[in-house]
Amino acid sequence: MKIALAQLNSTVGNLENNKNKILQYVFKAQENSADIVLFPKNAVFGGNIESLSVIKNFHDDVAKVLEGIKQKSSIPVLVTAFDKNKKNVPFLIENNKINNVSNIVFEIKNKKFYCILADDIKDVSFICEDKNILLTDNLIILAGGYYYKNKPEQIRTFIKKVAEEKSVNVFYINMAGAQDGYVYEGGSFSVLKNGNFNKIAKLFEEDFLITDTEVDINVEQKTNNEEEIYNCLILGLKDYCAKNGFKKVALGVSGGIDSALVATIAVDALGSDNVLGVLMPSKYTSKESMDYSIKLCKNLKIKYETVPIDNIYNSYINECPQVFKDTKKDLTEENIQARIRGNVLMTFSNKFGYFILCTCNKSEDAVGYSTLYGDMTGGYSVIGDLLKKDVYALSNYRNTISNVIPVEIIKRPPTAELRENQKDSDSLPEYDILDDVLEKILEKNMTYSEIVNSGIEEKTLDKVYKLLFSSEYKRRQSPISTKVTKTSFIKDIKFPMTNKYICKKN
Amino acid sequence: MKIALAQLNSTVGNLENNKNKILQYVFKAQENSADIVLFPKNAVFGGNIESLSVIKNFHDDVAKVLEGIKQKSSIPVLVTAFDKNKKNVPFLIENNKINNVSNIVFEIKNKKFYCILADDIKDVSFICEDKNILLTDNLIILAGGYYYKNKPEQIRTFIKKVAEEKSVNVFYINMAGAQDGYVYEGGSFSVLKNGNFNKIAKLFEEDFLITDTEVDINVEQKTNNEEEIYNCLILGLKDYCAKNGFKKVALGVSGGIDSALVATIAVDALGSDNVLGVLMPSKYTSKESMDYSIKLCKNLKIKYETVPIDNIYNSYINECPQVFKDTKKDLTEENIQARIRGNVLMTFSNKFGYFILCTCNKSEDAVGYSTLYGDMTGGYSVIGDLLKKDVYALSNYRNTISNVIPVEIIKRPPTAELRENQKDSDSLPEYDILDDVLEKILEKNMTYSEIVNSGIEEKTLDKVYKLLFSSEYKRRQSPISTKVTKTSFIKDIKFPMTNKYICKKN
Repeated sequence: MKIALAQLNSTVGNLENNKNKILQYVFKAQENSADIVLFPKNAVFGGNIESLSVIKNFHDDVAKVLEGIKQKSSIPVLVTAFDKNKKNVPFLIENNKINNVSNIVFEIKNKKFYCILADDIKDVSFICEDKNILLTDNLIILAGGYYYKNKPEQIRTFIKKVAEEKSVNVFYINMAGAQDGYVYEGGSFSVLKNGNFNKIAKLFEEDFLITDTEVDINVEQKTNNEEEIYNCLILGLKDYCAKNGFKKVALGVSGGIDSALVATIAVDALGSDNVLGVLMPSKYTSKESMDYSIKLCKNLKIKYETVPIDNIYNSYINECPQVFKDTKKDLTEENIQARIRGNVLMTFSNKFGYFILCTCNKSEDAVGYSTLYGDMTGGYSVIGDLLKKDVYALSNYRNTISNVIPVEIIKRPPTAELRENQKDSDSLPEYDILDDVLEKILEKNMTYSEIVNSGIEEKTLDKVYKLLFSSEYKRRQSPISTKVTKTSFIKDIKFPMTNKYICKKN
Repeated sequence: MKIALAQLNSTVGNLENNKNKILQYVFKAQENSADIVLFPKNAVFGGNIESLSVIKNFHDDVAKVLEGIKQKSSIPVLVTAFDKNKKNVPFLIENNKINNVSNIVFEIKNKKFYCILADDIKDVSFICEDKNILLTDNLIILAGGYYYKNKPEQIRTFIKKVAEEKSVNVFYINMAGAQDGYVYEGGSFSVLKNGNFNKIAKLFEEDFLITDTEVDINVEQKTNNEEEIYNCLILGLKDYCAKNGFKKVALGVSGGIDSALVATIAVDALGSDNVLGVLMPSKYTSKESMDYSIKLCKNLKIKYETVPIDNIYNSYINECPQVFKDTKKDLTEENIQARIRGNVLMTFSNKFGYFILCTCNKSEDAVGYSTLYGDMTGGYSVIGDLLKKDVYALSNYRNTISNVIPVEIIKRPPTAELRENQKDSDSLPEYDILDDVLEKILEKNMTYSEIVNSGIEEKTLDKVYKLLFSSEYKRRQSPISTKVTKTSFIKDIKFPMTNKYICKKN
């Protein structure tokens, strides 16, 4: 028996295009004499539809795609679409019929198939308790879940165990594409009842597998976390631009590590010709920052423009005497610089169509160390789910492929350069401590006492809790970012903005 | 039997304060010889906790509040809190014990009580199928749902029917307070098995009721939609400011209807002394706009400041020759003016602590007729769930109380004044048509053909669909707003940003 897995990349709402892509893979499966071709969850309508169901015509239009597939397919095709209750369920298109196979075992060539939808391991664990699984030869998992660190390996390990314990062949088919910061990572596979991986598809790109259940091979599993995350970030940005019609991107290049990594990812996603660096020096910008920025742009072979901001800054100071005359310098003067830079970037966007990339990282977002409408400006926050330490790790990883990020940028201490001799560590704990605390709160879910007992000072912990909660309002106005962890601010963690909770020692 | 309903306003995470408020009402109920005192859903922890459950200490701290209530109460107290599985369920605190009464009928003075949690009518309908309800004398509904237009009347009508049909006394107890744009409207009531309303609490403020089930009275129900919505908007803003520590607000006053209504709501919520109007004229600002703005500020007795933006605008033009030299004037030049105004407002915020109010309305948000980081600047979008026609309706309603919004503002045609002789209708359908189409798409869920058959031109409909979908990315970076409909962009309707769906004629 030959089973085809079509790991495609569809686009939400692009029904005609998704149908044509599906049909291309159907024909390819037919050419390869497959007995059935499997498509990932959501392949027909393209991903997470959110409130599109409000639009009355949408579900009818999706149903028409199934009709279109039916008319041109000569082998069984398994996809998901909406049933009468607008629930997303599997449909088997076979013998000129479209059958809802939700929770039903179906047969092909006298072999039983059991089909489930699953976004993550927990969805699979649940269904494994179902006794029907013991009556089947083949388990099909139509997956539509998002990538997070270590997921591909965890999924494979878990499902291999299911295959062995239940003695079934398992076909796990996932999308490979991105939508609004959520990345479907691909990595579809077939694992036979003996636990051998017959085929494993590529991560983060379209792929097509044919598994012959009679052929016993065991392909090697490979995992490189940094490579995985880096490629996830590339696909997240690339698909957002491609699917929304943006060809060119621009970003503020500051001479710091965050904008350096974002520029590099942008070049890897869209090509050097499509990336513009904008240098926006003020009187607080060091010569090193300018030199490193230019060196980065040259290494990446991207164009750059320079817009000094001091004169614009002075015009605000002069025109707002109510604010600036006879008052003490404070955060206002710092923020206005960041906001001028945001506005300047948006003029490039409005006039020339550049899509603006935000360069904030997760450590900054967690504690609100960023300026709303300033450095938070942009349509996409490329590294918004990376802690500062991961920014360094991925920069170093990328430099092992080709040495594009100047080592001086990696080595210098982080600074916002919004006042004389400013360092991030003036306002924040050192990043290694901050990242450690954030992981303990968000990922390890440790209690206050557990965190203190692990060696964190109470003063530091109190400060991080306070900043974490009080900066929620900024995160709500942040551009979306690519999710790469289970604790992203884009999808997983949203605190109430109104929130008087104080986490303290018991 | 005497039953007390404590319609309180708690704050998320403010556990000590919520406990003290609850105890105050417990004591008041005791003084009034109540047999039991009921608190709305979420009264202990304060509302929607979102990801606060990530914080390991939180659930333990909530449990301690129940202990604190137990120690000081001498009558039965019904509240909700978390069970072992972190599920929010009712607890009856009685005789020095804390009993989880989830789905269980309990007894007080030989009378049976059946208690459910419900956020909206559909939650109540569901439970009415439960046969246990026929075995009980009293149904308690601990409510925690958000206000939307007509809800209080709909809830009363539905529950009166339940009381009569099932022959039970029903006690509906809801919070009165706001959190992050969601308003719990209060309006708690008791309706006896004969269908008579024994007591109805105030809307949009704390209240305390004692129902004696032996006394047969029927209080009058009153409904005024505009008053309801206006008071909802006041509470939404007032509570966001109060619970987040903002005393003073500022907003850009343009001489248009949107900023006029927002300023008025702000004054009604916070008092004239705490509202600042900022006038930011450019060369495109008409004399009328300035005159009307000043008249509005004088009527409202609020302070105003004037910051002309032309010089700042010119400094951007001069400093960004890459963008502005030898290029054609377009949206860029318009947007930069709006963004300068956003930045100026933020300097008032940063320097003096003014909380900035955004003045966009729902019609604009729906079609993206607003500038990101420009007029979309702010921490709270006061009228973001009001269609333009509702902006007019509420302005007229408010003027019936006292004539504060100059009639010239209500009568003039809407304009953004970002270029010579601009009118909103240059870019958008007239607002009466736009609002009609938006209601047909979002609220009435009509199909394309149904909308066309109702008299809307296809060209107009195509344009609205296109703008509605393509402006989702802006709405995701918008400040929160007070929900007053079932189709708010803050909570109910989020389209995918990546979305190639084209709704067209079948």
